Amino acid sequence: MHILVTNDDGLLAPGIAALAEALRPLGDIDVVAPASGQSGAAHAITFLAPLICERISIGGSFFGWSVDGSPADCVKLGVQELCRKRPDLVVSGINAGANRGVDVIYSGTVAAAVEAAFIGIPSLAISLEASGGFDFEKAAVHAHAVVARAIALGIGPGTVLNVNIPGLDRGEPRGIRVVRQSTAPWTDTYDRRADPRGRSYFWLKGGGERGDEPRVDTDLAALRAGYITITPLQYDLTQYPQLEYLEGAWRDG
Amino acid sequence: MHILVTNDDGLLAPGIAALAEALRPLGDIDVVAPASGQSGAAHAITFLAPLICERISIGGSFFGWSVDGSPADCVKLGVQELCRKRPDLVVSGINAGANRGVDVIYSGTVAAAVEAAFIGIPSLAISLEASGGFDFEKAAVHAHAVVARAIALGIGPGTVLNVNIPGLDRGEPRGIRVVRQSTAPWTDTYDRRADPRGRSYFWLKGGGERGDEPRVDTDLAALRAGYITITPLQYDLTQYPQLEYLEGAWRDG
Repeated sequence: MHILVTNDDGLLAPGIAALAEALRPLGDIDVVAPASGQSGAAHAITFLAPLICERISIGGSFFGWSVDGSPADCVKLGVQELCRKRPDLVVSGINAGANRGVDVIYSGTVAAAVEAAFIGIPSLAISLEASGGFDFEKAAVHAHAVVARAIALGIGPGTVLNVNIPGLDRGEPRGIRVVRQSTAPWTDTYDRRADPRGRSYFWLKGGGERGDEPRVDTDLAALRAGYITITPLQYDLTQYPQLEYLEGAWRDG
Repeated sequence: MHILVTNDDGLLAPGIAALAEALRPLGDIDVVAPASGQSGAAHAITFLAPLICERISIGGSFFGWSVDGSPADCVKLGVQELCRKRPDLVVSGINAGANRGVDVIYSGTVAAAVEAAFIGIPSLAISLEASGGFDFEKAAVHAHAVVARAIALGIGPGTVLNVNIPGLDRGEPRGIRVVRQSTAPWTDTYDRRADPRGRSYFWLKGGGERGDEPRVDTDLAALRAGYITITPLQYDLTQYPQLEYLEGAWRDG
């Protein structure tokens, strides 16, 4: 099995080294990742500028391709040009911070996995919840177990599994839950500041609490409860129930 | 009615001026858009850097806020800080180029509309297919008609309508179709080039033909056939059929 490993925190981030090392027993690994941090890059893609690439050592016996683009660029370019052979699987992570709920829409880690699905390659995005620090070595043991199990179950082309690991300073995960994505919105706000010339500028504040999720079948709730969460994702964004209504309304009205 | 107009081509792009002018009969307009072109920005969001804003004239009697961020930033910041009051509707466009099929995932124009939905404001993304040039004045007449009709039908919070207008040098649109998003992949490739020092770099080539879409109920096919297309979008990316399968498989295996 040939595996492409990527991320959105950049090629030199500790999470990707831990992931690549942990997946080594499962197959041959190619690492292709952004040259710089791309948190919040979502599914951005580069076509108005060229992509400069560099092959560099990322510690131990691993080499990786550094690409001055987005996570989605890394997968697209990695599969077409940089990998030694076409990957059978793409694994993105381990991200420093959870990607659950509407994070999924903003996440470059998840976008890399979705890009793989476009190309017909099954994929997993793996993120570690912040809790004090990030114990990527420990998280990588769980990442390995989930990826190995996904391979054993036979995940097929077009499949994207979004995996979140709870912060490990809270103790070992309580188990694994296959759950839907929460759609509870962020409630963060902007800090308004003045520049040296007195003009206003704004900075997005983090840490806004989200709306309550009384049901426990979401990624948000299950992660909070200490479970590893797995959410299969799609990239057909059609809102089907509304499609049916609008077809009629637009015709009849 | 208070309407926030934004785009991903930048505040000074001709499409947004035509759109703002065309929507003027429908309510009060605030314009908040990226300072520079953000094509392919997808749902990128800025939180590691501040957002610098400037209020500038965009021709005629219109003023707009220029934000050095992404389309999603413009909606988030516009609603929270820059608009004179909370918008009842967000309209993003008119984009220079169609956003149908998997373009939807890469599109900043669409992301701005989806961001509005997060915040509970109904929205439309409007894009004009390339065909020779872009006749934004003519396209704006269609944009006005679609937005007015959507308001009359009463689109509610959380609704995102992705609208594509066929290239108008092919003649008038044949009508309006409410259709699902195509998931046919791009088939574009990279141009491999050498820098002045002989090292390889890559540039994404456009124009790759997509897979055939024999069915005519997609945005891709209906737009090709000369129809204005409307696709309601969602932002719950859960792949529900697979969720059910995996719940069982992960438990039993």
